[in-house]
Amino acid sequence: MLHSRVQISPDHARWALSGNSDWFATYSSSADAEEASVLAPKFDAEGLVTCVATDAATGDVLMVAHMNAEALIKTITTGEAWYFSRSRKTLWRKGETSGHSQRVVEMRVDCDQDAILLKVEQKGGGACHTGRRSCFYRAVPLGPKGGGPVTLEFRDAEQVFDPKTVYGGSNER
Amino acid sequence: MLHSRVQISPDHARWALSGNSDWFATYSSSADAEEASVLAPKFDAEGLVTCVATDAATGDVLMVAHMNAEALIKTITTGEAWYFSRSRKTLWRKGETSGHSQRVVEMRVDCDQDAILLKVEQKGGGACHTGRRSCFYRAVPLGPKGGGPVTLEFRDAEQVFDPKTVYGGSNER
Repeated sequence: MLHSRVQISPDHARWALSGNSDWFATYSSSADAEEASVLAPKFDAEGLVTCVATDAATGDVLMVAHMNAEALIKTITTGEAWYFSRSRKTLWRKGETSGHSQRVVEMRVDCDQDAILLKVEQKGGGACHTGRRSCFYRAVPLGPKGGGPVTLEFRDAEQVFDPKTVYGGSNER
Repeated sequence: MLHSRVQISPDHARWALSGNSDWFATYSSSADAEEASVLAPKFDAEGLVTCVATDAATGDVLMVAHMNAEALIKTITTGEAWYFSRSRKTLWRKGETSGHSQRVVEMRVDCDQDAILLKVEQKGGGACHTGRRSCFYRAVPLGPKGGGPVTLEFRDAEQVFDPKTVYGGSNER
């Protein structure tokens, strides 16, 4: 049952009240949101949803980031990926410093509407600020291990750009 | 610089102190964690990391969930996907009710070690508790829109199992 402007859960109240009800519906239960044909993001206590970006050509997972309401709206309207940096507490257009922007080919939302999937064209070949194509360049071995912390294996970890050249002293991504 | 048992950030303190230093290292900065060859998960304030599960055969994103330290360790040791349910506040082996478990083919960690990628063999054909293969069965149209909330488009939304039959009255997933 849709309550787009009537019943507003605490999670959604801040956004609905700040004018985003023109963009997002709200639901009183996850079960309702699952079969809904309107966008009703379930923002967490910090006002964020999780976002996974994949390479539209290969399907490979490139990165995981977060979006607040503004980043979500900007991504929808511009077709470029915008995120919200939890560490820097700022809205951020991917590539604004590096030039390595992401053109969104397709955007999807998950069942309970707390996660977004972007299929993107990654400009510059690398999504990761460390210079790799993907942020997932290390494997975690499964099964028995020796003493001490789990040892990681670098995999698909070659750098496609030099982060020092691209970012300089900036900590933007 | 590694501080596996010396300098512990507040984020990691609870896990390190509860005995998980035998599994996880800790770092004083994200930059150190990025090039590290040891697992040093950056748990959030709730003690969780984000986890993306993809189909190992097709690469399609199946679901986004969360892991606490225990879920992460159980996944590594058993090779089956374990998660932590934020809504039910419980550790949860994927498929424990439905039988639709996930065998982990490969596990990866991202640059700043706050996200995990699992490439899995999905038993039963469907990862989503709504009966779909993937949780991402609705597209968000990009560009200009009319008045009111964004309308979603169901895509790849056919059910591969009947959730009522599989879950009955259970709200486990």
